[in-house]
Amino acid sequence: MSVNRRWTLAARPDGPVKASDFALVSEPFARPVLRMGEVLVRNHLFSVAPTIRNWLNDGGSYRGSIPIGGTIAGMTACEVIASEHADYAVGSRMVAMARWEDLSVVRPDSAAVPPFPVPNDVSFEDAMGLYSPNSLTAYFGLLDVGRPVAGETLVVSGAAGSVGSLVCQIGKVTGCRVIGIAGGAAKCRHLVEVTGVDAAIDYRAENVAGRLAELCPSGIDLFFDNVGGEQLQAAVDNMADHGRIVLCGQISAYDRPGGAPGPSDMMKIVYGRIRMEGFVVGDFVDRASTARERLRQWQAEGRVSVQVDVRRGFERLPDAFVDLFSGGNAGTLLVAA
Amino acid sequence: MSVNRRWTLAARPDGPVKASDFALVSEPFARPVLRMGEVLVRNHLFSVAPTIRNWLNDGGSYRGSIPIGGTIAGMTACEVIASEHADYAVGSRMVAMARWEDLSVVRPDSAAVPPFPVPNDVSFEDAMGLYSPNSLTAYFGLLDVGRPVAGETLVVSGAAGSVGSLVCQIGKVTGCRVIGIAGGAAKCRHLVEVTGVDAAIDYRAENVAGRLAELCPSGIDLFFDNVGGEQLQAAVDNMADHGRIVLCGQISAYDRPGGAPGPSDMMKIVYGRIRMEGFVVGDFVDRASTARERLRQWQAEGRVSVQVDVRRGFERLPDAFVDLFSGGNAGTLLVAA
Repeated sequence: MSVNRRWTLAARPDGPVKASDFALVSEPFARPVLRMGEVLVRNHLFSVAPTIRNWLNDGGSYRGSIPIGGTIAGMTACEVIASEHADYAVGSRMVAMARWEDLSVVRPDSAAVPPFPVPNDVSFEDAMGLYSPNSLTAYFGLLDVGRPVAGETLVVSGAAGSVGSLVCQIGKVTGCRVIGIAGGAAKCRHLVEVTGVDAAIDYRAENVAGRLAELCPSGIDLFFDNVGGEQLQAAVDNMADHGRIVLCGQISAYDRPGGAPGPSDMMKIVYGRIRMEGFVVGDFVDRASTARERLRQWQAEGRVSVQVDVRRGFERLPDAFVDLFSGGNAGTLLVAA
Repeated sequence: MSVNRRWTLAARPDGPVKASDFALVSEPFARPVLRMGEVLVRNHLFSVAPTIRNWLNDGGSYRGSIPIGGTIAGMTACEVIASEHADYAVGSRMVAMARWEDLSVVRPDSAAVPPFPVPNDVSFEDAMGLYSPNSLTAYFGLLDVGRPVAGETLVVSGAAGSVGSLVCQIGKVTGCRVIGIAGGAAKCRHLVEVTGVDAAIDYRAENVAGRLAELCPSGIDLFFDNVGGEQLQAAVDNMADHGRIVLCGQISAYDRPGGAPGPSDMMKIVYGRIRMEGFVVGDFVDRASTARERLRQWQAEGRVSVQVDVRRGFERLPDAFVDLFSGGNAGTLLVAA
């Protein structure tokens, strides 16, 4: 009999999330009798993603909610160790929606984002980096929802994050002028020098609306929003006519159960003929392999790269998660078990 | 020398607009020497439209602003009585963006919505009714921006108004199930019995969000919003996944210079994959004749009709305008000089 460690929700965060909101449980693990359609996986690498914050709030909403004492949910890179599903053989490797625990029972057919296989020649880090759901979020959100055109001005909030950083790079591939918004001088310098944006705005030190007005004298054609709140408002105040706003996430409000409000004056959206559109990556899974092939090609050409921040040690999951909201990470944050 | 009467802005409305915010000026009119590109028109019929309320607020914004003492702007049905523009001969009739006055100098080429000609076999009332810019707003907003599909559930705010009423009817032509929101039992009864909606919600007497939940158990596919504010929020709380919100106007906030805010929680837009899109009818003028032809055909088939509320007397313009915001009109409100 093996041991299963798992991180559970000890308390609902009241405002900013703290490591003490989580509790580690270690208990003997009796291999379960799987039902038809289930697989048992061993989780090797955990994605520490902002969206998990939504699930820590009280339930009753459309967002989903983890109960007190429940195990934290999240994407993992994992290996199938028992299977009652014909498509997932024992020994196969995949990225799946599982939980923060050593061993998880997963039902692939009822997952919002179906598991995707990780071929033997792709490392778990690449599977959770360049080929991860976050990368697909950037790819489909920008190209399918935003529909950028060469020569347009693209502004990205949360530009130093996992999704935002790749949006910036794909934006450059499409021929856009790209402006990234991030917190802190170091992240902004990295955006300009490494990620390759045309300009960066430090929302902690600068007036975002004022800087956008300076940098976008003809207005913003396309705003890719991971943050919401004040940054969304600053973008709305500087949109070009017929501009588009891709709503990917609202990390500024994940600490607040009420959520982040929309623009203060919707007549700006009317007169500006603005399109605001939300999306979730789960809707695009049937085209994931095409997206990954293009990402692989762009990486080979040196046009995109994904910065992965891997921490070692299952016990470090809560600290890594807290870092995500205090801006202590750069790129995709992963924890290896 | 003739006399020109004109309604001017006497005071910026502080909250709800009052008749005393306007002042009537009557003065001798010396026929002006027109510059190239200008025409002089006699205004016969005035459109009393909610959007004018925006122009009464303080300037400095994207909305445009009429100065104190300035003449109120608005669409009129008019006749050209002098012309320095090759396309607009003396004697030709048109609907144009002019002002609340007997005689206006108009520059067709610099108007946001270009004037459109009124053929001799079309009355001024029809030109300002079925074929008016309001009708084109309904037509293009619903069909081009909203893109309804037969069988979908369409909800319309301001459904008893000039734009909303036609949106409801075109929605039925497209095969949608249509629910109209309006103020007062009489308007709601008219919507069901005359306009032909499937259900009506009286926002003054009923809880809009609760009624929408009852009437749209599978969610709202398409929301056409003329009102904004609480009604927009009620719709957002009841949208189906992949629903669309057409942002046409925000009459609930025209009394407030700050405007009406967007949804309280933008994550609903993300998770729901909602598209919210603003538009102005001026972008569709090149296709106006096609739209008018289809409206004429639907009218002949008895599928659409436009209710026109014509008041007689130039001096009644402010009272009619105040009625618009207190819900005292039904259908398109016009004042005949």
